[in-house]
Amino acid sequence: MTITKVLDQIDSDILNSIDRLFELLRIQSISTDPAYKDECQKAADWLVSDLNSIGFNASKRETSGHPMVIGHSEGASPHVMFYGHYDVQPADPLELWNNPPFEPTVEETKKGKVIRARGAADDKGQLMTFVEACRAWKKVNGRLPIKISIFFEGEEESGSPSLVPFMQKNNDELKADIALICDTGLYGEETPAIVTMLRGLVKIELQITGPSRDLHSGMYGGISINPIRVLNRILSGLHDDQGKITLPGFYEGVSELPEKIKVQWQKLSFDHSHFLSEVGLSAPAGETDKSPLEMIWSRPTCDVNGIFGGYAGEGFKTVLPSVASAKISFRLVGDQNPLKIIDSLKTYVEENLPQDCTAKYIEETPSKATHMATDDPAFEKARQALSLEWPKNATFVGCGGSIPIAGHFKDILDTDAMLIGFGKDDDQIHSPNEKYDLSSFHRGIRSWARILDKLSEG
Amino acid sequence: MTITKVLDQIDSDILNSIDRLFELLRIQSISTDPAYKDECQKAADWLVSDLNSIGFNASKRETSGHPMVIGHSEGASPHVMFYGHYDVQPADPLELWNNPPFEPTVEETKKGKVIRARGAADDKGQLMTFVEACRAWKKVNGRLPIKISIFFEGEEESGSPSLVPFMQKNNDELKADIALICDTGLYGEETPAIVTMLRGLVKIELQITGPSRDLHSGMYGGISINPIRVLNRILSGLHDDQGKITLPGFYEGVSELPEKIKVQWQKLSFDHSHFLSEVGLSAPAGETDKSPLEMIWSRPTCDVNGIFGGYAGEGFKTVLPSVASAKISFRLVGDQNPLKIIDSLKTYVEENLPQDCTAKYIEETPSKATHMATDDPAFEKARQALSLEWPKNATFVGCGGSIPIAGHFKDILDTDAMLIGFGKDDDQIHSPNEKYDLSSFHRGIRSWARILDKLSEG
Repeated sequence: MTITKVLDQIDSDILNSIDRLFELLRIQSISTDPAYKDECQKAADWLVSDLNSIGFNASKRETSGHPMVIGHSEGASPHVMFYGHYDVQPADPLELWNNPPFEPTVEETKKGKVIRARGAADDKGQLMTFVEACRAWKKVNGRLPIKISIFFEGEEESGSPSLVPFMQKNNDELKADIALICDTGLYGEETPAIVTMLRGLVKIELQITGPSRDLHSGMYGGISINPIRVLNRILSGLHDDQGKITLPGFYEGVSELPEKIKVQWQKLSFDHSHFLSEVGLSAPAGETDKSPLEMIWSRPTCDVNGIFGGYAGEGFKTVLPSVASAKISFRLVGDQNPLKIIDSLKTYVEENLPQDCTAKYIEETPSKATHMATDDPAFEKARQALSLEWPKNATFVGCGGSIPIAGHFKDILDTDAMLIGFGKDDDQIHSPNEKYDLSSFHRGIRSWARILDKLSEG
Repeated sequence: MTITKVLDQIDSDILNSIDRLFELLRIQSISTDPAYKDECQKAADWLVSDLNSIGFNASKRETSGHPMVIGHSEGASPHVMFYGHYDVQPADPLELWNNPPFEPTVEETKKGKVIRARGAADDKGQLMTFVEACRAWKKVNGRLPIKISIFFEGEEESGSPSLVPFMQKNNDELKADIALICDTGLYGEETPAIVTMLRGLVKIELQITGPSRDLHSGMYGGISINPIRVLNRILSGLHDDQGKITLPGFYEGVSELPEKIKVQWQKLSFDHSHFLSEVGLSAPAGETDKSPLEMIWSRPTCDVNGIFGGYAGEGFKTVLPSVASAKISFRLVGDQNPLKIIDSLKTYVEENLPQDCTAKYIEETPSKATHMATDDPAFEKARQALSLEWPKNATFVGCGGSIPIAGHFKDILDTDAMLIGFGKDDDQIHSPNEKYDLSSFHRGIRSWARILDKLSEG
């Protein structure tokens, strides 16, 4: 059987795979910092060269920011498009790293071997699982099992400013039967997971202004409006006592979890006590009538992520500030419409704004929730392939975060996405001492080889 | 008449009075900054020397911080104790001063001549009005009209850490029939004012902690408690819709304004529209059933002077913070008990703290409200004396701020205090380009000469 040979090839070549990943990890492709612009170019060039060496027709595509890397192969149907990103988070604070962040090492830990470096898990290690799977297929069979395209971005960690324009401009070229995205994790330690829903995200900063300048509370206290007090009142009105969000129309488009998914999630036996106790908490604090997994995967939220106004230094200043601000975000699910929610928030604020106060809003581009097309047979094939590779059977999961690329594939390219990744909760992505388990890397490569095999069965 | 000769002496010596004030203003006696420790000593030495030159028995008295200056004269009853402070606020931001802050000048402005320097109004210019009045009395009569003591502090702008211990330790020496405090202002432009009530002050920082570290809202949003939300709810429950403070027992000790005072305040025709429009507001935002002057002079308040938690930088971070904090202050009136109010706040917070949250409190020494002994004939004498000097008759006023020294005189020394000062609202104390009107200085000196004269009438 071909797949057995491919898996053997992967196993016998694993040290070389690690070496290649290390080459990529040594490139300091920090996308937010202009000082590393050339390093981003270098990472893109390295990928173009590597893809071309295994039979892709790959090229670097300039944008107004960092370049995209696009590669295509010949092959049979279905046509899959693989997405990953080669840029990484800044590495500071550097002094908290035990090894230099751009000098990758394989480390022995209590839980096994890990690859330690900035970008090891997010996302260089993950994207190379797919590239290495392709390399093994090519080596064993001289060709890939299906038609594969590659799409690597270099701005994921800095807000992806070029992504949507690039996808719109290259619509025809980037379409595929399905998109594969490798930027997520396992469920727990050994259960491979396919993300079938991602929450959307609305981010909006609310600034309330009262007096035209900061006032002394000895002189003005009691007669002057205090924008902090106004802001507190407005924010505290956003939830009721059951944890429901009170904005009119907020729950439009939110539906109850389908029974099938509910059953699957129950089987996961999510240990919310452990999940919470790791961060010093003991009880779920969300909607009182929902299960813990629903709260983080399939229910919408409203949170204040930052609040500030008046004096924040040591000691005291009896100031009545002119301005008080809050950064508010909503996680969206189902068919919730971000624009309607922003409108509803603004209407609520204006209705509750007392005389002499004004409100200003600073918005960021919102995203809707994304639901994957789990009816597509590719999902069941991937589930079977993953279940063969890992100690536990693969499962469909939700994801509380927002991965905008999945929505873009659907909205811009009409291509459904499947999110499969091999990260772990303790990978410390975005933090010092980021790591990727060697087992994630090795099994990740084997997983993709198996998935490509299953997809080729037609 | 002696007083006429004293006033003539003041007028003829005014240029020398200005020169002496300038000598004191040139000393950079910034009390909060340890770098200016020697300058504070220098200011104290200058005052000791000046007081001794006009017949006081004055000396510098070391404390664990900056020294006090104490002087005594012989003289007839009543015995008055004059308080002022020789330390000043820091001068930064320096670039906003039109002249160097410690190089005093007399400037011509649209509204008349002003003395421009850090400390011109707060409080060097004010304390020198009294010293110059004594100098003129001494010059004309060879002696002071009554027994006078002097008490200058050097830590008023840095929280007066040595004040209470010093007053307790020197209780007998510092007692007097009445204390005169010159650190307040006129009412409007030309109406001399005697402050008869000062609000007390409670300052407390409330820190709410939820999770043990900052969390990502994609992963934890919906299930984890958010301390900002808890803080918002707690703070927004402190007032009802009529602007009343809801803490149980808060209004204990608050009494309605006496009819006599109410009538006096009505005569002041306080232009609250103008007062508010200067800071961009149009309507009083306090208790709906109280007059504007009551709101700022005789009613208690609760304000949040600072709030902070989560991400406050540019853009967005979808963080659920571990801690959220608010700096809360209460202005107190009548017999309100600060300790009871702090207890009531803590009880309210604890009762409203959800599972998994803890509250921490950082308190500063609170002060009760102070009510002056306006039945003491000295108040009526001072009112008459001031009315002779100024274009408009003197008035009894309230003061929304807190001047702890007045309460200390009463509590520690059993000495009632009378607060008279000649500052104006536009003096820019604590800000760049601080000034003191030359007319405030000149008429201030003449005012004290007249007050001492009236008090000596027995």
